[in-house]
Amino acid sequence: MSNTQTVTLRQTATPADREHVRAIVESTGMFRPDEVDVAVELVDERLAKGEPSGYYFLFAEQQGRVVGYACYGPIACTVSSFDLFWIAVCQDQQGRGLGRRLLEESERLIARAGGTRIYIETSGRSDYLPTRRFYERCGYAVEATLADFYAPGDDRVIFGKVLGAWQDQH
Amino acid sequence: MSNTQTVTLRQTATPADREHVRAIVESTGMFRPDEVDVAVELVDERLAKGEPSGYYFLFAEQQGRVVGYACYGPIACTVSSFDLFWIAVCQDQQGRGLGRRLLEESERLIARAGGTRIYIETSGRSDYLPTRRFYERCGYAVEATLADFYAPGDDRVIFGKVLGAWQDQH
Repeated sequence: MSNTQTVTLRQTATPADREHVRAIVESTGMFRPDEVDVAVELVDERLAKGEPSGYYFLFAEQQGRVVGYACYGPIACTVSSFDLFWIAVCQDQQGRGLGRRLLEESERLIARAGGTRIYIETSGRSDYLPTRRFYERCGYAVEATLADFYAPGDDRVIFGKVLGAWQDQH
Repeated sequence: MSNTQTVTLRQTATPADREHVRAIVESTGMFRPDEVDVAVELVDERLAKGEPSGYYFLFAEQQGRVVGYACYGPIACTVSSFDLFWIAVCQDQQGRGLGRRLLEESERLIARAGGTRIYIETSGRSDYLPTRRFYERCGYAVEATLADFYAPGDDRVIFGKVLGAWQDQH
């Protein structure tokens, strides 16, 4: 675990993060080009509008290199529900606890901002099984499955987690 | 039903529709001020960006007055799924089949644009029971319920409908 101990987290997004996000998301091999574009667009929205964009970022840096990130935000028309829009770690840095650290720190920031529930949407495809297992290990449960949502044979799986008082004590 | 026969539908949004949408949504008494603002913001997005906004509108006019509207669009990162974001009819014009006409015409336009599935999200609160019954009468089925999503005691109910070949023949 020595590698993860040198990781620092930062919340402020910079123009350079457009390419960091693109590189991280592309490296995973899990997303189509149009999905990669959506990931970068959220950085653009944040840079252009600031907090009113509704997109909050958390970047993980290791020896000056951005190796992972999370993007979350409050869900419009809800009192205290948040979406985790993206969480990704560079292919060559996976399996070292970075994803869990990004997710737990996101939960802490969301709880601090008044959030009580977090939702994460992902695919039901078999190649997303490790992703779904990761969310389950982090305390998320499947709240809904929408058949063929993304494409024929590609379900939308909605995970949820209720934040407790313990998050504030972290 | 003579009233509905004089209704005309149009797709192009104009700046005046900002206030039409606000008046229609407010008249229903079903939405909080922040939700009304979101409805108007979608008109703003459409006026500012055109089709790339991803928001498509359908307005129902009766004797020169806009009495109802629907707003739908393709869901990012899906192949052919669409969201019906809003559908509302002025309080004093409800119960005359305008909602059904707006919904069926939206379905026809979505099918023509290549859409195969439509999703509608609404509240599980008891005051939304007539709304949920309306979607069921129009062929939508509950695909998922997310407990306490909007607020404690206020579930998110996701309705879905698979579009068939018949829509194109309409």
